[in-house]
Amino acid sequence: MPPSSGRPIGPTAVDVGGVRAVNLARVLAAALAAPTPPTRAALATATGTTRATASRLVDDLVAGGLLEESAPDAGLPRGPGRPGTHLSPGRGVAALGLQVDVDRVAAVVTDLTGAVRASHVTEGDFRGSRPEGVLGLLADVAGRAIAEVDATVVGARLALPGIVDGRGVLLRAPNLGWSDVAVAAVMPPVDGLPAPVVGNEADLGAVTVSYPAPGRPGEHADFVYLSGAAGIGGSVVLDGAPLRGRHGWAGELGHVTVDPDGPDCACGSTGCLEQYAGMRALAVAAGLEPTARTSDIARAARDGEPAAAAAVERAAEALGIALSAVVNVVDVPVIVLAGHLREIGDLVRPTLLETLTRRVLSARWAPPVVEVAPQRPLAAAVGAAYAELHALVADPGRRLGRRRTATPAG
Amino acid sequence: MPPSSGRPIGPTAVDVGGVRAVNLARVLAAALAAPTPPTRAALATATGTTRATASRLVDDLVAGGLLEESAPDAGLPRGPGRPGTHLSPGRGVAALGLQVDVDRVAAVVTDLTGAVRASHVTEGDFRGSRPEGVLGLLADVAGRAIAEVDATVVGARLALPGIVDGRGVLLRAPNLGWSDVAVAAVMPPVDGLPAPVVGNEADLGAVTVSYPAPGRPGEHADFVYLSGAAGIGGSVVLDGAPLRGRHGWAGELGHVTVDPDGPDCACGSTGCLEQYAGMRALAVAAGLEPTARTSDIARAARDGEPAAAAAVERAAEALGIALSAVVNVVDVPVIVLAGHLREIGDLVRPTLLETLTRRVLSARWAPPVVEVAPQRPLAAAVGAAYAELHALVADPGRRLGRRRTATPAG
Repeated sequence: MPPSSGRPIGPTAVDVGGVRAVNLARVLAAALAAPTPPTRAALATATGTTRATASRLVDDLVAGGLLEESAPDAGLPRGPGRPGTHLSPGRGVAALGLQVDVDRVAAVVTDLTGAVRASHVTEGDFRGSRPEGVLGLLADVAGRAIAEVDATVVGARLALPGIVDGRGVLLRAPNLGWSDVAVAAVMPPVDGLPAPVVGNEADLGAVTVSYPAPGRPGEHADFVYLSGAAGIGGSVVLDGAPLRGRHGWAGELGHVTVDPDGPDCACGSTGCLEQYAGMRALAVAAGLEPTARTSDIARAARDGEPAAAAAVERAAEALGIALSAVVNVVDVPVIVLAGHLREIGDLVRPTLLETLTRRVLSARWAPPVVEVAPQRPLAAAVGAAYAELHALVADPGRRLGRRRTATPAG
Repeated sequence: MPPSSGRPIGPTAVDVGGVRAVNLARVLAAALAAPTPPTRAALATATGTTRATASRLVDDLVAGGLLEESAPDAGLPRGPGRPGTHLSPGRGVAALGLQVDVDRVAAVVTDLTGAVRASHVTEGDFRGSRPEGVLGLLADVAGRAIAEVDATVVGARLALPGIVDGRGVLLRAPNLGWSDVAVAAVMPPVDGLPAPVVGNEADLGAVTVSYPAPGRPGEHADFVYLSGAAGIGGSVVLDGAPLRGRHGWAGELGHVTVDPDGPDCACGSTGCLEQYAGMRALAVAAGLEPTARTSDIARAARDGEPAAAAAVERAAEALGIALSAVVNVVDVPVIVLAGHLREIGDLVRPTLLETLTRRVLSARWAPPVVEVAPQRPLAAAVGAAYAELHALVADPGRRLGRRRTATPAG
C-alpha cells in the first residue's frame, strides 16, 4: 500500500514505457511524501534524476491532474533557470471511499490532497439487515457524492465491518448478521465505475493513521489500530501496512476473549472484547439505552455518575487484557484508539497503560504508548479512498497512458 | 531465513565474483530443497542454467563439503554424457546449536543433512541462577560436542527462553530470573568460534518445523509453534519465517492472559497461559511434585486419575483461550504443539479444537488444525544450528571464497 519511492531506474532497450511508468511513480511519490510542496529541482534531487527529466515527468503529472503547480514564491531565493514553482498534490483525480456500519452507510470522495470533497451519509438500523437493501442505499449515497465533485474518480473501495476474502466476498459481519455476500453481484453499479474493492473497515481506517494524506507517511509506521462502533475492529500495522496473516483476516481484536465466562457475543463466542468495550455494551453497562452515544457515557463518567464510570473502567480493563495479548504476540506497543473509543480515550488510558505495563513481557524495554486517533469522521471510508489513490500513485502511468517516447526516461 | 532459490542471474561486467556467489547459493538451495538427491542435470534444469555451469558450481560445492556425490544409480536410465551421479547435502560443514532451559544446558552439532552429529546435555536447576555459571557450563558441553565431530563448524547460535535484542543481549527470561545479559561478554569462547548469535528458543525450535532439514521446506509454512518447558514460548511463523514485530519480541504466547484473576506469574502479571499449561503448573495442579514429568501426568490422566485429568483439561481450556486470541489477531490457524505439550497433545486436542472453533471468528472458513510436533530432542538447539546453516546456505561463496574466474558464471 505505501507508494514506493527512491531513485528512478535508468533507461533500458527493453521497455522505455515501463521505465517511464516507474519514474512517474517515483516522482509522484516523492512529491506527495514531501512535508512542504517541493520544487522541480527538489524532486530531481529526491529521485536522483536530472532536472530536465524530472521536469518532463512533472509536466505529465500536472497535465494529468495528479500534481498542481503554484506560482513561484517571490520571498525565496531562486537559482538560475526556470522559476522555482512549487508542486502540490493535484485535485484533478479522486477516489470513492465507502463504508457500511450497523447504523449508517456512507460515501466520501477524496483527492490526492487528502481533502474530503464530498461526503454523504444515510442512517438506519442495519442489524440483521438484507445486504441487497443496504448496498442499494450505499449506491445511492455514492452516486450523490460523486455528482458533487468536479474530478475524475479513478476507483472505489468499500470498508466492511467483518472478514472479507480476496475476491470481494464478505464472509462474515456478525453485527450486521451478514454472511457470504459477493458485493459485486449485489451492489448496483455507481456512475459507471467498476465494483468497489472490498476491505476490512479497521484495516482501511488504519490507513488514515499510516498516511494522514495520500502518500504522506504519518508519525507511526507500527501500531495497533482499534476502530469501534457497534463492534470493535482492529488492525495490526507493521511498516505502514496491515498484517494480513494467512488469509487476510488478521486483526480481529473485537473477538479476543477477555473472560471466557463473560456475556454471549453475536459471533457465537463468549466474553469477547466488544462485549465490554463496544458502543452498545458500554451503553447497557452504563444503564442507558443500547443506542446511547459514547460521548454521553463519557460525559456522565466525567460527572461522576457511578454506573457510567464503572462501565468505562470495565472497558479499560477489558481493553488492557486484550491488547496485552496482542502486544505480547505481535510486539507492536503503540495503540491508537479510534471510532467511539476516541470519546473515552482519556478516561481509559490510565488503566489501559497500567494493564499493558503489567501484562506485556517486554514493557520495560518498550513502554506501551496509547494514543487517541485524530478526529476524522468516516475514517474507514476516507482510508478506503486513500487506499484506492495509493493504487493510482503506485502506477500513475496507467492513468496517463504508457506512451513511448523518444527520450529515454521521459 | 529460508534460502532463496530461483534462476541464476546472468554474468555482468560489474562483479563476476558476486554473480558466482549468487549462483552457488541457488544451486545449493535447489539441491537441499529437492525431495530426493538430484543429478547435475536436474539442478541445471531447476536453476535454469546450462549443464556445464551447474556442473562447475556443483564441483565447487562438493569440494567445499557442502554437497556430496553418490555413485551413479545403475538402476535408472541414463542420458548421454557424464554419468548421472546424485548429489546429497554434505557432511563436511556443520553448525553448533545451543540451548539453555531452566533444567539443562545443551549443545548439538548438526550438518547439512540435518543429522545431529553430536549432542551433550548437562542437567541442573537454573531458576534464579547466575548467567556466568550457567553459560560456563554451556561452553563446556559445547566444547565436548564440537570435539566429537569431524567437520568444519561454521558458526554457533544460542536459543534462550526469553526476549533478546538484535545485539545479542537477553533482555528478560522470567523463569531463569535473568535480565539484561550480554551473552558475548559473559560466555567463555568455544573452540575459537565467534560468540553465538542469540535468539528466542521458540523461534528457533519452530525452524525445525519450517525446515525438517536445513533448506528443506516442511509441510507447513504458516503455523503457530508452542514450545514448552518450565514456561511456554511461542513463535508465529508466516511464509516460513517467524513474525518479528517491532523489536523482534513477537510470539510471547506464554504470557497471554487467560484469566486476569488467575495465579501470579514470574513475569509480574497474573493468569498467564504458562500458569495453566507450563510443565510446573501442570504438575502442581495434578497434585504431584513441581518437577514431575509431563509424561507421568499424561499417563495418570489416561488412567483416569481425577486430579491429573482435571489439570490436563484446565490446560486445554487455557490453551484454547490464548490460541484463539492469537488466531483472531494474526490469522494463522495451524497450531503445532512442541516441548512438553507434545506429551499431552492428544489429550488436549479435543477441547483445544472445540475452543478454537467457537472463539475464532473465521473458523468456519479456515478450520483450525492442531498438530503435535515430530519427536525432536533439543528442538531449540537443533533449530539454532539449522538457522546458522541457513546463513551459510544463503551465501556459500563466503565459505568457498569469492574467487573471480575467467568463465562468466562459474
